[in-house]
Amino acid sequence: MITLLTDFGYQDVYVGILHGMICRINPNVPIVDLTHGIPPQDCYTASFQLRQATPYFPTDTIHVVVVDPGVGSSRRGVAIQTTQGILVGPDNGCFTGVIDQAKIIQAVALTNSKYWATSIPSHTFHGRDIFAPVAAHLVLGIDLTALGHLINPDLLVRLPGLETVETPSGWCGHLQAIDHFGNLISTLPGSLCHPTATVTYQNLALPMATTYSDVPPQHPVALIGSHGWLEIALNQGHAAQQYNAQIGDIVYLNLS
Amino acid sequence: MITLLTDFGYQDVYVGILHGMICRINPNVPIVDLTHGIPPQDCYTASFQLRQATPYFPTDTIHVVVVDPGVGSSRRGVAIQTTQGILVGPDNGCFTGVIDQAKIIQAVALTNSKYWATSIPSHTFHGRDIFAPVAAHLVLGIDLTALGHLINPDLLVRLPGLETVETPSGWCGHLQAIDHFGNLISTLPGSLCHPTATVTYQNLALPMATTYSDVPPQHPVALIGSHGWLEIALNQGHAAQQYNAQIGDIVYLNLS
Amino acid sequence: MITLLTDFGYQDVYVGILHGMICRINPNVPIVDLTHGIPPQDCYTASFQLRQATPYFPTDTIHVVVVDPGVGSSRRGVAIQTTQGILVGPDNGCFTGVIDQAKIIQAVALTNSKYWATSIPSHTFHGRDIFAPVAAHLVLGIDLTALGHLINPDLLVRLPGLETVETPSGWCGHLQAIDHFGNLISTLPGSLCHPTATVTYQNLALPMATTYSDVPPQHPVALIGSHGWLEIALNQGHAAQQYNAQIGDIVYLNLS
Repeated sequence: MITLLTDFGYQDVYVGILHGMICRINPNVPIVDLTHGIPPQDCYTASFQLRQATPYFPTDTIHVVVVDPGVGSSRRGVAIQTTQGILVGPDNGCFTGVIDQAKIIQAVALTNSKYWATSIPSHTFHGRDIFAPVAAHLVLGIDLTALGHLINPDLLVRLPGLETVETPSGWCGHLQAIDHFGNLISTLPGSLCHPTATVTYQNLALPMATTYSDVPPQHPVALIGSHGWLEIALNQGHAAQQYNAQIGDIVYLNLS
Repeated sequence: MITLLTDFGYQDVYVGILHGMICRINPNVPIVDLTHGIPPQDCYTASFQLRQATPYFPTDTIHVVVVDPGVGSSRRGVAIQTTQGILVGPDNGCFTGVIDQAKIIQAVALTNSKYWATSIPSHTFHGRDIFAPVAAHLVLGIDLTALGHLINPDLLVRLPGLETVETPSGWCGHLQAIDHFGNLISTLPGSLCHPTATVTYQNLALPMATTYSDVPPQHPVALIGSHGWLEIALNQGHAAQQYNAQIGDIVYLNLS
Repeated sequence: MITLLTDFGYQDVYVGILHGMICRINPNVPIVDLTHGIPPQDCYTASFQLRQATPYFPTDTIHVVVVDPGVGSSRRGVAIQTTQGILVGPDNGCFTGVIDQAKIIQAVALTNSKYWATSIPSHTFHGRDIFAPVAAHLVLGIDLTALGHLINPDLLVRLPGLETVETPSGWCGHLQAIDHFGNLISTLPGSLCHPTATVTYQNLALPMATTYSDVPPQHPVALIGSHGWLEIALNQGHAAQQYNAQIGDIVYLNLS
């Protein structure tokens, strides 16, 4: 199986072209569109979103990411075999989230043009010319090491994360993502949260709840989200709009 | 076959995760995304949209709906076998439209955790943990009654509809939906409309037409839409913007 | 394989219904959604987008377009066999781009209702009632000529293009499209561009570059895009917003 995660949006045929390139090489492979709504060139959000998805796919899935501000420059293309699937895309940090939580088995730089769509790829669309064809060949059973030379996994580009630090009364983290529902997803792992903890965000002091409807509609609530992070939400409302939330905003978890 | 209809939008990987959960259990089942653009928590629109789609699918299709403001509360999850497919999702009224137009064969509450992704599901994402896995198992041939205990179909939650009443000169209905094109879809069934009828909406008095291009571009037109309801449109324009239309607006059908 | 390209957007189930109609006739055919984000009734953009995609699909692919302002009028439905796949949809110019670049083998008017969903189609949704069913039958191996009578390919509707003319110093073209990234795609073929050429757009004079990151972030750049046209972009920015660009804007290519 192949998944696709890009910043291509939904108005052009760029996503359709990726599907076409895969189907030409391997017409029977199932393709899942994770999302094509990553903000343009936003490797940080790509990393966060991919990290959320990989645990729910078979471990032999090929995950292709095309969020690629440096396309055509010297940034390299990579394929990374991990315990949560094989990752294919630019080496620009968009795999940071997955390689934080999974184990890397081996990684290669994509230098063997035999598995590309053309030996002279375009300078602006490596998703079409390199990453999608490479993924289709991997599903056909090509060995990872046929795609190029092995590289040191420690040298893969990793994005710096937002800091989470211990405080006298608990932990201090940040908002790392805002989802379609306007829910605010922090960097604080749910494993840190006790049922008696409280959460401070802006001027709110919130006890930990279990689900959205533990509070009346349009009231704020803190809970462990489905992704495993501490989340702040507005029941049946849009917390991000209500609180003018920004990625990076500080969130305190108070344990005492 | 499985279809998915949610309010997840297109920016996150929540939809992709549903696909992953299904493929892990049943890698070969075709999955159709009906839409993921239902407004957040809007069971009424979910019901309207699903009702439009089910007649065009094979009768053994599994239709999964995840529009679920009460997730994690005491609202139950259900699977409903009907003459228009098996419906899987929360019992919150989002199936009202289909069970209005189809015959219910049997219904169960989803209580058997054997067919869930985990025996302890999250409190906020039953689409991933319960509904998608249950659908994948149904396609594998699991009997509906294995999923939980039978429930009385009369007790399924139904959303109240907008009233349609007879008047001295015809019928009075409401706008029940506005589509992507800005077309205004009323609650008045096309079967009530005679070719000589006229339609009154706001200050417009419109004869019945057959198709959009029966009037010049940007002119209003009343016709029986592809869904079978009386519809008001602006040929090659956006009626909802032009008339500042709202769900619930009154529409008269004049037969005399 | 079948591809779909429409102006249906992502909020309604109209796209899902096309999938259902195809699966009822032919449950195993892979379906690729090229895009459903064509602006409503915009045959010009449909033509541009389809033209970009067809070269990347197998030549026996069926490409269905439903951008159909004249649905239900006397405009005819057609199936056109070309060297870049079979095109199915309304004869309103949306195939102009493909038939400009591919060779037409034969074309038929869709008059044989045996291959429609119903012998009395709706007046407003021929995608559902005619084009999707016809495509599904074509994949099953029905001969093109069974779908209706042969028509003269020279009489297919073609949209007028934006003019590209030679000037004393090079070429004068126009913007023909703006993509999701805000990149400005001109009518000037990349084959006209020499490495030493310069491009004039609004008050900008730009040397030809190879890729976006040849200039610093937020700086303008001219290059040959992945589609093969001369393109003007803002590295990691949105050129269309920055320059308030409009389709039709003049672009000069200076060769001397």
